[in-house]
Amino acid sequence: MTDRKIEPRTLKGFRDYGPREQLARQQMFAKIQNVFERFGFLPLSTPVLEYKEILMGKYGDDEKLVYSFKDNGDRDVAMRYDLTVPLARFVAQNQNDLALPFKRYQIAPVWRAENTQKGRLREFYQCDVDTVGTNSPTADAEVIACLCTVLDALGIEDYEVQINDRRIFRLFDGGNSTDIIRSIDKLDKVGKDGVLKELTEKGLGSDLLEKVKSFLDAAQGDPGKLGEQLMREDLKDVWDALQALQSNLKRFGVDWVKVKFNPTIARGLDYYTSTVFEIRLKNNPEFGSISGGGRYDGLVDTFSEKSLPAVGGSIGIDRLFEALESMDLVQSAPAIQVLVINQDESLQNEYLELVTRLRAEHINAEMYYEAAKLDKQFKYAESKGIPFGVIMGTDEQNRGVVKIKKLATREQEEISVEDAAEYVRKHAHK
Amino acid sequence: MTDRKIEPRTLKGFRDYGPREQLARQQMFAKIQNVFERFGFLPLSTPVLEYKEILMGKYGDDEKLVYSFKDNGDRDVAMRYDLTVPLARFVAQNQNDLALPFKRYQIAPVWRAENTQKGRLREFYQCDVDTVGTNSPTADAEVIACLCTVLDALGIEDYEVQINDRRIFRLFDGGNSTDIIRSIDKLDKVGKDGVLKELTEKGLGSDLLEKVKSFLDAAQGDPGKLGEQLMREDLKDVWDALQALQSNLKRFGVDWVKVKFNPTIARGLDYYTSTVFEIRLKNNPEFGSISGGGRYDGLVDTFSEKSLPAVGGSIGIDRLFEALESMDLVQSAPAIQVLVINQDESLQNEYLELVTRLRAEHINAEMYYEAAKLDKQFKYAESKGIPFGVIMGTDEQNRGVVKIKKLATREQEEISVEDAAEYVRKHAHK
Repeated sequence: MTDRKIEPRTLKGFRDYGPREQLARQQMFAKIQNVFERFGFLPLSTPVLEYKEILMGKYGDDEKLVYSFKDNGDRDVAMRYDLTVPLARFVAQNQNDLALPFKRYQIAPVWRAENTQKGRLREFYQCDVDTVGTNSPTADAEVIACLCTVLDALGIEDYEVQINDRRIFRLFDGGNSTDIIRSIDKLDKVGKDGVLKELTEKGLGSDLLEKVKSFLDAAQGDPGKLGEQLMREDLKDVWDALQALQSNLKRFGVDWVKVKFNPTIARGLDYYTSTVFEIRLKNNPEFGSISGGGRYDGLVDTFSEKSLPAVGGSIGIDRLFEALESMDLVQSAPAIQVLVINQDESLQNEYLELVTRLRAEHINAEMYYEAAKLDKQFKYAESKGIPFGVIMGTDEQNRGVVKIKKLATREQEEISVEDAAEYVRKHAHK
Repeated sequence: MTDRKIEPRTLKGFRDYGPREQLARQQMFAKIQNVFERFGFLPLSTPVLEYKEILMGKYGDDEKLVYSFKDNGDRDVAMRYDLTVPLARFVAQNQNDLALPFKRYQIAPVWRAENTQKGRLREFYQCDVDTVGTNSPTADAEVIACLCTVLDALGIEDYEVQINDRRIFRLFDGGNSTDIIRSIDKLDKVGKDGVLKELTEKGLGSDLLEKVKSFLDAAQGDPGKLGEQLMREDLKDVWDALQALQSNLKRFGVDWVKVKFNPTIARGLDYYTSTVFEIRLKNNPEFGSISGGGRYDGLVDTFSEKSLPAVGGSIGIDRLFEALESMDLVQSAPAIQVLVINQDESLQNEYLELVTRLRAEHINAEMYYEAAKLDKQFKYAESKGIPFGVIMGTDEQNRGVVKIKKLATREQEEISVEDAAEYVRKHAHK
């Protein structure tokens, strides 16, 4: 070790999560995991590093944001950019051993060399459920219902599920449909007239322009009208799929009022093939889409001769956590219930035995290591969110009792040592 | 996306954890986390990437195993090599905001470019508890007791805690004590004569050689004798500290029979300053030390003008998991209790409503997406460790009942739809 001091700092776009925040995050992860397992998804863990070629060709323009480098063995390696491509790689690699459909969840960090000026993190968590190996539309509805149930479990009520089917853009076959989709994607920002203006400037023919106009009218107005248009255009299958998705979502317990058909939802990533969806907070639109996904029937094929259709969705957990904070919905239960107050040098061993006794009775407890002023110790307890102080002087020790102080109110009660754990357990959640 | 198939594979030293294994690992992590919080430690999360200079100068010869590269902004960055150095960085960076002592745990992967021929992983999990900002010897005992309690909670009984104090090597001041420590470190492999032979070859003076001989005699025989030697050599403080550590471990609930003073324990890392310890499995010595740590009073100082003493320990979770597997102690509870069997095309909606009903009553359940042969569905359930199948044909549906089949024995009972969830809950753990 050198004597030069190294400045302690974190990289831009990377951050620590201190105890209070991390505790709340872990409790949130646990709730999410519970819902995922309730819906029949099991966990998968994949490495942070993959061969670079596994990730390349999947993310379009954003490919330049992948963290990649040469390792000590001169291999081209890359850090995980999302959880979907590693899943596709895993399924292709293990297809002979996996029972299908393969339903998995993964909650893990990913890395993207984003522009941090927009406040974006370069290391952030994703939280994915996916079902691989079935064409059943039930699987599409189940993924969306599962993510909605996560939001329900976290106490979020004002969300809206916007569903669409990418095959709807077959309407614009004959034009440059990628151009058209990109313009439509800007609808939120530039409005209907803005979209039409841009497409006119791009030189879109008047037939197609008229089609887009009537599409956007229908999108913003009566979806039934769009249905009629789809029927005329030989897209009945797409319309039927969207209807079935809505019915199935309802059967899976999703509040139907929260589900909205939005034909302008396209999703950025290249690999989606039919169902696409986004979940937004109606009263907090500034957080954008906090969840999204869709069906991607071709992705596993990039690693495998066998075709394995798939559908999945992801929650942006950091954005969700921010949203929860802004809605005052982050409630982390106190992790530690008791601080054994240390006020008498001669009772060190007794404090130690007392804290051990509480722990043996499954109370999360710690002792202050040295005799110190009460105020200092109370302040320490407060900083860790500890609700109770347990006080024992020689008098109490001789009588086999302790004083239990509720630190928030400074009220205290005298309790026998035998009953201390039970008392804390009873009063911890009041 | 290209049409060329990319071979699906993982990097050497990196691996996936499929659902069954990952489920067991997560359940193990949850147990460990419970014990950590019972002892008053709170979670911290630090980034995977750090400035390279933060990590350098800490790991001695092993520094070459750090994964490092230049990021898109031409910064020298490195992947986390352990959880201790990032903790030291965090504490130094936030010292004005942290209540001391700072007690934290972290369960997270680290990366080392190890030689994979020895079967070592390059990505593996560490599981650390540390207390920063106190000199109190109580903190040393608490860290060790906490790790022992983790092993207890995992059902491991045959472990041995070997404790030592690095200051004991002051005995050999005057010689090249680094050389002496390195030779003593090989005691397990080469035996006492081997150590002495090596030191003779290194040209150690006869006085020191005699000292080492009597040290090793005492180490393998009666620790009281070593105590006498330490007294004579003005190392009473070290001997007293070791005695106090043993007493405190007992008060913290550690079975005293499991604690052994082993004066030849030195630990590889440079930063330890006094207490050091290792935990080994007595009946499974092939797993080596599954836990270890000690006091490192100088590490935070490399980032900070203020001196912050610290003590901590780590569990090598992958080795521990392997050990648990070999002792048949890995018992993962089934994550999913019910598969709703799909046997009638006309009842799709009813199956969907049934699985939703079970989930609403907090049963982890899934439905098979398409009507298929029973055997195929049972096999699927088995592959996911699902204990119950719920069967409903039109007859059952008309009567408002289901058949619940215990898949292991193929026994089944007819239960009303209303009571199905309760039935599963009752019978799930039998």
